[in-house]
Amino acid sequence: MSNHETWTLSSDRLFSPEPSQRAVARALFERVAQLPIVSPHGHVDPSLFSDPEARFGSPADLLIIPDHYVFRMLYSQGLPLEDLGVRRRDGGQVETDHRKIWQRFADHFYLFRGTPSGLWLKHELISVFGVKLPLNSRNAQVIYDQIEDCLRRPEFRPRALFERFRIEVLCTTDAASDPLNHHRAIRASGWNGDIRPTFRPDSVTDILRPDWRQQLEALAHAADMDIISFGSFLEALRRRRAAFRQLGATATDHGVTLPHTEVLSSADAEAIFQRALRGVATPEDGVRFSGHMLIEMARMSLEDGMVMQIHAGVYRNHNPLLWERFGPDKGADIPLPCDFVRGLKPLLDLYGNERNLTIVLFTMDETTYARELAPLAGHYPALRLGPPWWFHDSFNGMRRYFDQVMETAGLYNTAGFNDDTRAFPSIPARHDVWRRASCNWLAGLVVRGLVTEEEAAEMAVDMAVGLARKTYRLEKNI
Amino acid sequence: MSNHETWTLSSDRLFSPEPSQRAVARALFERVAQLPIVSPHGHVDPSLFSDPEARFGSPADLLIIPDHYVFRMLYSQGLPLEDLGVRRRDGGQVETDHRKIWQRFADHFYLFRGTPSGLWLKHELISVFGVKLPLNSRNAQVIYDQIEDCLRRPEFRPRALFERFRIEVLCTTDAASDPLNHHRAIRASGWNGDIRPTFRPDSVTDILRPDWRQQLEALAHAADMDIISFGSFLEALRRRRAAFRQLGATATDHGVTLPHTEVLSSADAEAIFQRALRGVATPEDGVRFSGHMLIEMARMSLEDGMVMQIHAGVYRNHNPLLWERFGPDKGADIPLPCDFVRGLKPLLDLYGNERNLTIVLFTMDETTYARELAPLAGHYPALRLGPPWWFHDSFNGMRRYFDQVMETAGLYNTAGFNDDTRAFPSIPARHDVWRRASCNWLAGLVVRGLVTEEEAAEMAVDMAVGLARKTYRLEKNI
Amino acid sequence: MSNHETWTLSSDRLFSPEPSQRAVARALFERVAQLPIVSPHGHVDPSLFSDPEARFGSPADLLIIPDHYVFRMLYSQGLPLEDLGVRRRDGGQVETDHRKIWQRFADHFYLFRGTPSGLWLKHELISVFGVKLPLNSRNAQVIYDQIEDCLRRPEFRPRALFERFRIEVLCTTDAASDPLNHHRAIRASGWNGDIRPTFRPDSVTDILRPDWRQQLEALAHAADMDIISFGSFLEALRRRRAAFRQLGATATDHGVTLPHTEVLSSADAEAIFQRALRGVATPEDGVRFSGHMLIEMARMSLEDGMVMQIHAGVYRNHNPLLWERFGPDKGADIPLPCDFVRGLKPLLDLYGNERNLTIVLFTMDETTYARELAPLAGHYPALRLGPPWWFHDSFNGMRRYFDQVMETAGLYNTAGFNDDTRAFPSIPARHDVWRRASCNWLAGLVVRGLVTEEEAAEMAVDMAVGLARKTYRLEKNI
Repeated sequence: MSNHETWTLSSDRLFSPEPSQRAVARALFERVAQLPIVSPHGHVDPSLFSDPEARFGSPADLLIIPDHYVFRMLYSQGLPLEDLGVRRRDGGQVETDHRKIWQRFADHFYLFRGTPSGLWLKHELISVFGVKLPLNSRNAQVIYDQIEDCLRRPEFRPRALFERFRIEVLCTTDAASDPLNHHRAIRASGWNGDIRPTFRPDSVTDILRPDWRQQLEALAHAADMDIISFGSFLEALRRRRAAFRQLGATATDHGVTLPHTEVLSSADAEAIFQRALRGVATPEDGVRFSGHMLIEMARMSLEDGMVMQIHAGVYRNHNPLLWERFGPDKGADIPLPCDFVRGLKPLLDLYGNERNLTIVLFTMDETTYARELAPLAGHYPALRLGPPWWFHDSFNGMRRYFDQVMETAGLYNTAGFNDDTRAFPSIPARHDVWRRASCNWLAGLVVRGLVTEEEAAEMAVDMAVGLARKTYRLEKNI
Repeated sequence: MSNHETWTLSSDRLFSPEPSQRAVARALFERVAQLPIVSPHGHVDPSLFSDPEARFGSPADLLIIPDHYVFRMLYSQGLPLEDLGVRRRDGGQVETDHRKIWQRFADHFYLFRGTPSGLWLKHELISVFGVKLPLNSRNAQVIYDQIEDCLRRPEFRPRALFERFRIEVLCTTDAASDPLNHHRAIRASGWNGDIRPTFRPDSVTDILRPDWRQQLEALAHAADMDIISFGSFLEALRRRRAAFRQLGATATDHGVTLPHTEVLSSADAEAIFQRALRGVATPEDGVRFSGHMLIEMARMSLEDGMVMQIHAGVYRNHNPLLWERFGPDKGADIPLPCDFVRGLKPLLDLYGNERNLTIVLFTMDETTYARELAPLAGHYPALRLGPPWWFHDSFNGMRRYFDQVMETAGLYNTAGFNDDTRAFPSIPARHDVWRRASCNWLAGLVVRGLVTEEEAAEMAVDMAVGLARKTYRLEKNI
Repeated sequence: MSNHETWTLSSDRLFSPEPSQRAVARALFERVAQLPIVSPHGHVDPSLFSDPEARFGSPADLLIIPDHYVFRMLYSQGLPLEDLGVRRRDGGQVETDHRKIWQRFADHFYLFRGTPSGLWLKHELISVFGVKLPLNSRNAQVIYDQIEDCLRRPEFRPRALFERFRIEVLCTTDAASDPLNHHRAIRASGWNGDIRPTFRPDSVTDILRPDWRQQLEALAHAADMDIISFGSFLEALRRRRAAFRQLGATATDHGVTLPHTEVLSSADAEAIFQRALRGVATPEDGVRFSGHMLIEMARMSLEDGMVMQIHAGVYRNHNPLLWERFGPDKGADIPLPCDFVRGLKPLLDLYGNERNLTIVLFTMDETTYARELAPLAGHYPALRLGPPWWFHDSFNGMRRYFDQVMETAGLYNTAGFNDDTRAFPSIPARHDVWRRASCNWLAGLVVRGLVTEEEAAEMAVDMAVGLARKTYRLEKNI
C-alpha cells in the first residue's frame, strides 16, 4: 500500500494457473483481444453521443453516483447513499463535494476485492485513465486529480472514447415512447459511430405500473395516434417498432418479473385493456396481460424481423425505504427463481419452431441453466441463450454458465456477449473479462482433448464477436 | 480441416491438465479401462440380439435417425427433422437418401463441439469403425463409405460387437406387458451374452395416458388373466414381475413426471381404478394413482427382491407441433424441478428403513443433489443415488455430481454407472467417459491428500463395475 | 492396509495440486494456521467445562454415539443404530460394549472416504490422539486402547484440550429457558476459558411443538414471572436475553423450517398466543407466529445489540420410525428449498436498513447463494452471510460458497467461520479445513491476478478470525 507501489493488471489475468491451459488460453486470447467490440445490449445514454461536445462530469459523476453496482456495496457496509451523492427524490441534502465522495469510495475500495466491479474499476482506471497508483485512502485525491484532468481533455469525450474502444456497434435501450431524438441527432451529425436503439415497451405492457396512463399517453404521442383500445395499442407499438427499425434497431427487450406467457382471446385482451384504462385492472389482469404481450411481441418480431430479448426473474425495488427516498435502480433488485419450462410454453407452442424468429433468454436463476434453458435452447429453433446476466457477469458467473449450458445447448445456441452496462467507460473491461473467460474455457477443452486448437480458435472468435453479430442480425455491418 | 489431417482421441482426454493429478488419473484409469462393461439400465432394443443375423442398417440408421440427442441439436439450428429422415406419423415425405442425411449431419457436426454427443460420436467413429479423417462436409461421403462397409461385415453384427465391447451384462427396458419374446429367443439361442429385461410398468400405472385401456389390455393378455379391479391389476403386475425375473430381470424402472408418492386406502385405489376403467379419471386421480403405484411397486420389490429405479422430473413432449408430427422421444423432453423431500416421504415412511430394499433415484434437477438426494441417501438404508442422468451424462455433469453428492452421501450410497442409451455402439464411449471422469475425480482426492492411491484404486474399480453389480444385484455373475 | 503402514495427514492437504497456486496457498496458510480459534456458534455442551474434572468417556462415547454425522452414514448402509450404542427412547436394548461399537465403526470406516467426517475424524485421531495406524478392522482395538489411554490422562480433560486448541472464545447454544448454571459455574470457577451462551428461543417460539406448554413453563420459571399473555411472553424473553448477555452472550440463534417472516398486529399476536395457551392453535397460527417472532427478536436485537442468527430450511425428523425409536438429531434432518427474497421481506422492510443490527443468514439450499443471499447481503446493511452450514461444511461446500457468494456479496458481507459442532475434539479439524479452503481460494485469486498477495494475506486473517470477531461483536476480547 506504499505510494511507490505500482498498480498493475496481470497480462495473464483470469487464466488458469496451470501452465499448459494458460498457454493455450493466452494464444487464443491474442487472436481476439484486438477484435472490435460488438455491444448488442446495454444501457448507455445516447445523449453522450448526440452532442459532439458532451462530457462525463467529475470522476464521481462518472464512476460512483450513477453506478448501483458500486454504491450498493458501500451501502451494504453502512455508508448512507446521501454521503455518496446519490440524489434524493425529495430534494433532501446529499453530499455535493465530489472529492469527499471519491475519498469515501477510495477508503472502502477494499470491499470490492475479488468482485467483478473491483476488477472493472481497476481495469478502467489503469487502461482508460492511466492510473498508476493503487486506489486507496492515501492515493484517493491524486487519482481524482488525474481522472479529472483526463476528463477535461477532448480525447476523453464520449465519441473519442467510442472510437478508441473500437466499438463496432453499440445498442442502447429505449422506451417504446422515446422519440429517439438523440439517436436521430447522432445519425444527422454525420459522425459514423454505429449506435442503435432497442425497443423496450415494458412501461406500457405492465398495466400495473402506477404511471401506466402517462406512459401510454407518451406512447400515443410518439406514435402520433389515439390509443383507445387494445387494437390501437398494438398499432401504436407497431408504428414505434417501425420507427426504431428506421434508426437501425434490430432488437426488442422485455424485462419481466417472471417468465410467464399466456394467450388471451381478443375479447379478454380488450377487456383487460379497458379495465386498465379505467384504472381498475387487478393484479391478475396485470400478470395475464404482461404474459400475453410477450406473445404479441413475438408475433410482431416474426413480422418485422426484430430479435426479441426476454430478461426474466427480478424482484425490483425490494427495499421500500430506499425506493421511497431514492427511486429505482439503487442496488435493491433481487433475482427470483424462474420456471421457463411451464412459463414459456404458450409462447413456444406458437412460435418455438419458427426458424426466422430469434428469442434470447436471460436469467439470474442459474438453477435453470442446465435444467431448463440449455435443454430448451438445444431443441427449439427460435431460442438462443443470452450470456450471464447482471450479478453473474463475472469470471465465476461465466465459468458456471459455460459449465452448465454448453454441453447441452451447444455453443451455437448461445448469443455471445452483452455488456449490458450504463457505465460506458467500463465496456472494454467487461468485454475483456468475457474474452479472457471464454478463451480460458476453450483452453480447458483443448487441454482435455475435447476440441482442437484450430476449433477453439474459431470458437473464440465466435464468442468474442461472431455469435453476437449473428444472433442480433448485425452482420450487415461487416 | 485438410484431408490429410488425422482425427485422434487423446489418450489423456478428460483428465486434468495439471501433471500430478493427470498422472494419478492415468494410473487409476489403466486399472479400470479394460474391465468388462456392466450396463444395468438402458434402452437397447433386444431384437438386435435375438436374431444372430441382425444388422444395424445404414450409417444414418445407426447414428442419426433414431438418436434424439443428435437430431435435436440439428433441429435447434433450423434443420427440419424431415431432412434428417425422421419418420412422420402421417407418413408424410421425409428424406430417404441416407447419404444426404449423413452429409447434412457432417455439415453441421461443428455444432457438437464440446458436447457429450460430439465426444461419443467421435469415440465411436474412431474406435468402433476405425474412421481416421475428421467428420466434416468434405469427408462426409468417404466416412459414410467406410462405416457402410463395416456394417456389412459379420464382425459388426450386434452380437459380435457385444462381445468385442466386453459387455458382462446388459439390461434392457421393457414394458410390463411386453411378452419378452426377444429375451426368450436370446436365451433359447444358446448364445451366452447376458441380456436381461427390466420391468417398466409406466404405461399401465399412468391412468391418464390416452392409450391406457389398450395398454391395460396388453397387460392382461401378457399376464393371461382378466383385469377388472385394482386387486386383479396388482396380481397381473405381480405375474409379469415373476415372468421378468425368470428371464433374469433384477430391476424395475419407473419414469414419473414428478417424484410424488402417496398411500391410498384400498377403497380409494379401487375407486380411482374403476373411474379409469370407465374413462372418467380426473387429473388428480392420475397423480394420486401414480403416487400410490410407487408404493405398491416398492412393496412388491420387498417381496421379490427387484431393485426399484425411479427416474423423476421430466416434462415429456414439450413441443406439441413436433409431437403431433413425429411422436415421442424427439428431443423435446425438458427437465422439471423436483421435491424429493416431501414427495418421497410417504414411500420412505413405509419402506425407507428396509435394508433388503434398494431404490435407486435419478433426477435432472441438479439442485437436489446436495440439498435433498445426498442427505436422503446418506441416511435411508433403502436409498441409493443413480448416476447423472440424460443431459448430465457428460464430463461436467459427472463432475458436478461428484462434487455435490459424494461428500454427503458417500461413494457407497451411489449406484455406479448406467449408460442409459438406445445407441448400442455408443456404450463403450459412455463408459469410457464415466471411467475417465471417475478416475480424474479420484485423482483430485489423492493429490489433495484426501484418500490414498490405494484407496482410490479400490474406489475406481467400484465406480467402474463394483457398485453397479452390487446395487443391481448382478454380483452372481462374477 | 498393512500394519506397518503409517497414517499421515499431508501438510498440503486440500490445496490445489497446481504448484503456483499451492505455493501461494501454503504461504497464506502459514500466516493463519496458528491463529487462535474463534468459535461464535456451536453446540458444545458447557457442562464439559463447568466441572474441572469432567471427562469425555470412552472412545465410542466421544466419537460415535453422540455424532449423527457419523452414525447416519453407518445407518444408511444397514447398520442398526442399536448396534452403535445409540440410546432408545423406550429403554430397549442397545449395544453396551464400546469396543464392539468401535470395531463396527472401524470395519466401515471406508464409507467415509472423501467425506468431511472422514477427514475430521482422521485429523482428530492423528493430531489430538496421536494415532499412527490407519483406522480399519485390523487396527481397531489397538487404536481404541490408545484413545482410551489418552482420555484417562488429565491433559485430555475438556479444559486442557480447550487450552491446547488455543480457543479464544467458544459460544454454546442454549435454550431460552436454560438457567445457564454451567455457564455460571464456569465463570465462578475462576478458569479463564472464554465460553459464552447463545440465546436460542426456538422451543418457545414454535407454538406447534407438542411440548410447547412445558417449554413455556420452563421459560416462566427461568424468567421468574408468570406468562399469561403475549406481552408477558415478550417480557420473559427480554429478561432471559439480559441474563444471557450478563454471561457474555453476544448472539441469538433461530432455527426455522423456512425463512418466513410476518408482522402481526398486537391483537393478532395476542389471539394466536391465547389459542396456543389453550392448545387450539392451528398450523397456520404456528407459521404466522414463528414468522412474527423473528420480527420481535430483531426488534429486541436492535435494543440490546445481540447479533441475530437465522438457520433456515430444514425438514426435521424426516424419518418417523427413527424419531419414535431414538428421538431427534439422528441424521434424519433433510434440507429444504428456501425463498429468502419474499420470506424475509417483512423483516427487511422494517429492519434491513439498520446499521446497528446484524442478522446472519444460514441455509443449506445452495441455490440461494448466488440468486438470493449474495444480492441481499450485498445490499442490506443489516445482513451478513454465515459460512456453509451442516452438510456443506466441507471442502467442496466451502468452494461452492466462495464461488457463488463472494463476487456478489463481497468478502466483507460474510461472517467468517462457524464450526457449529457438538463434537468438541473436532473443532481444530474443522477450522483447519476452513482455513485451508480459504487460503486455497485466495491463492486462486492471486494466481489469476485478481488480488495481490498482500491483499490476500489480510483477507486470510479476516476469514480465519477477523470476520467472526467483528460480526459477532467479540472484538472486545482482543
